[in-house]
Amino acid sequence: MSLESIIIKIAKEARDAATKIADCSAIKKNQVLLAIAAGLKQQAGFIQTENIKDLTAARKKGLSAAMIERLTIKDETILSMTQGLKEVALLPDPVGAMKNTVIRPNGLQVARMRIPLGVIGIIYESRPNVTVDAAGLCLKAGNAVILRGGSEAFHSNQALAAIISQALEEADLPAAVVQVLPARDREAVNIMLKQDDSIDLIIPRGGEGLIRFVAENSRIPVLKHYKGVCHVYVDQGADLKMAEKICFNAKVQRPGVCNAMETLLVHKDSADLFLPSMAEQLIKAGVEIRGCPITCKIIPQAKEAVEQDWPAEYLDLILAVRVVTDFNQALEHISRYSSSHTEVIITENYKRARGFVRQVDSSVVLVNASTRFNDGGQLGLGAEIGISTSKLHAFGPMGLEELTTTKFVVFGDGQIRE
Amino acid sequence: MSLESIIIKIAKEARDAATKIADCSAIKKNQVLLAIAAGLKQQAGFIQTENIKDLTAARKKGLSAAMIERLTIKDETILSMTQGLKEVALLPDPVGAMKNTVIRPNGLQVARMRIPLGVIGIIYESRPNVTVDAAGLCLKAGNAVILRGGSEAFHSNQALAAIISQALEEADLPAAVVQVLPARDREAVNIMLKQDDSIDLIIPRGGEGLIRFVAENSRIPVLKHYKGVCHVYVDQGADLKMAEKICFNAKVQRPGVCNAMETLLVHKDSADLFLPSMAEQLIKAGVEIRGCPITCKIIPQAKEAVEQDWPAEYLDLILAVRVVTDFNQALEHISRYSSSHTEVIITENYKRARGFVRQVDSSVVLVNASTRFNDGGQLGLGAEIGISTSKLHAFGPMGLEELTTTKFVVFGDGQIRE
Repeated sequence: MSLESIIIKIAKEARDAATKIADCSAIKKNQVLLAIAAGLKQQAGFIQTENIKDLTAARKKGLSAAMIERLTIKDETILSMTQGLKEVALLPDPVGAMKNTVIRPNGLQVARMRIPLGVIGIIYESRPNVTVDAAGLCLKAGNAVILRGGSEAFHSNQALAAIISQALEEADLPAAVVQVLPARDREAVNIMLKQDDSIDLIIPRGGEGLIRFVAENSRIPVLKHYKGVCHVYVDQGADLKMAEKICFNAKVQRPGVCNAMETLLVHKDSADLFLPSMAEQLIKAGVEIRGCPITCKIIPQAKEAVEQDWPAEYLDLILAVRVVTDFNQALEHISRYSSSHTEVIITENYKRARGFVRQVDSSVVLVNASTRFNDGGQLGLGAEIGISTSKLHAFGPMGLEELTTTKFVVFGDGQIRE
Repeated sequence: MSLESIIIKIAKEARDAATKIADCSAIKKNQVLLAIAAGLKQQAGFIQTENIKDLTAARKKGLSAAMIERLTIKDETILSMTQGLKEVALLPDPVGAMKNTVIRPNGLQVARMRIPLGVIGIIYESRPNVTVDAAGLCLKAGNAVILRGGSEAFHSNQALAAIISQALEEADLPAAVVQVLPARDREAVNIMLKQDDSIDLIIPRGGEGLIRFVAENSRIPVLKHYKGVCHVYVDQGADLKMAEKICFNAKVQRPGVCNAMETLLVHKDSADLFLPSMAEQLIKAGVEIRGCPITCKIIPQAKEAVEQDWPAEYLDLILAVRVVTDFNQALEHISRYSSSHTEVIITENYKRARGFVRQVDSSVVLVNASTRFNDGGQLGLGAEIGISTSKLHAFGPMGLEELTTTKFVVFGDGQIRE
């Protein structure tokens, strides 16, 4: 069988399985989630044996220590996967809920019913725990899912898939509700991205290169974010103690993630008072500061920033700092350089708080809180499958509800159109 | 200037204009809508003079009478466009509304704020009234719009665009909020579909050929429906008088539209009683019946249906009829042949009414009402920009709300992530 026929077959089986899981009760879906969790615990030895095959190959290939770290399935990794499944089992089932029910003048009762999307394709890189996390969320939202992990995690992902299949079959559900692509080459991704008859949505998770490849080659709608260039603007008259605490948290608590602060904008009237002590703390924590000319005057240790610093996603202990003349210049800077991910204003001013929230065109806009709150769990979605920075269908963190859509249902008593 | 540079310039100007209209008050947007309506009325003579240029060219080219009819701007066409604008002005402004406001355990207040999508591209065929209808809806939802009508309506669309521009400029809004592509060739569409940096959404309206061309060539997300193969299923024990009334309405009231019935499925126990009198009425109204073998036995005038009849969108006085052995066979038929548009069950049975609504995977599913109700106005959306049969972002008729998205807004008091 050619690679193409294999993938077409997988996609068609997913489509058929989707109709079964779409109509499955929450009780049964939750039982499957807990059965997968139990399977992971019981078969931890098997998973780790398969994981060692991947780790050995990765070492041979000379992958970086960081990549090998991400690839490793430790006891804690298994615990965290089982914990995640249990949390998803506790979330309310979005499927079948009705909202916006109205009675039309002719007596028709019209409502929107939440329904699964159908078949979701997830394309991701090294971390094998995504296999379990993504499968759990898609399944709970009533979708079938096709997973395509990194080739370096091939054996680990196959082992996890086998455990998931077993739990599905024991519950009399088709194993095709969750499938892992058996192919290792990138051509498999390319073929998968053309199955728009069978797959409803693609979610890529990984580096910018992977995401661009998917976006450019997909005939299926893609939910994605390329990068997070998150800004904090410290306003004129801001509470500078609060600003220090928030900026430190936004930059230092976990610098390698997409919701960490990358650029700090400071109103010129706040700069002299705020920047010296802020810089001291940041530099102490190992942060390198790249500043505009005014910043460099106030902070002697700062390097001069160049144009490429403003749109940069460092994902590291580096911070770009610019002193702005007013609120509007801060808005202009953000509008020009932001990646539509997360922006923060620190202010005590009513009008500018409202103006910032209304005018900044990013997926999460915060007043007086850390950028690090752009996260499905933190914002109350329960768990997240990713963050979207494009506006169609979902904008911001995506939870269970974003893995569904709505259809109209209409109850009549013989109404016809005049 | 090359065609490509012209279109890139238009797209960039639309992007800039979008930030202006996004933040415009409802009062001002409504004033503009009413000013456009007044302009259409005052300059009716100019519009019709330009329209005659298109009509003359169309006759020279030998376009069909039906196409010329669609192209003609009569006094009633202008009245209906002004009426439409007034209705959109009366609809509530979706922009800025907040929903799902929650307080997180750490005191953060989290909500979703409705915001415009940004720049919308509409690609459509002959009817020039779409220029005004689509512009009005996009503008009210706070979006900039780029319109690309059919080349046969070129002068008419330019005239309408000039009137819209004038109303925008008189309100101190950029004329680039509504732009009509000045180019007549299809290459212009192709270039437009590649401007994913500046355009957020493409909505094609027209025949299947146009829609497929757009879907296959667009790098921008597309909301579309290819066709409406709408089914009515008359259940065992259905109220047959009601069934007759609904089926007649669904097929005959306006056979040329996407929400007309194309296939009638009848439970075998209802067939003998229902079909003869139903067929008599339909045949009297000029409907040609293409039936399964059992149907042909019951209705002597019916032609034998062939396989191509089941997925057919006739858009004409033709109806495919099949007698099914039970409810499940009706569901299987619909699942196999439906275009995810509109399906109806006529039933008095509680369980099957619920089962149909839950299991049928179409954008509008109705119990005891005509397929013709799949329409934004009829379902209470106010006005519609089109119907989506794909599930991402919108499924079913799309009104003002579907021309927007939501972002998260978060109000804090210094919260940081632990």
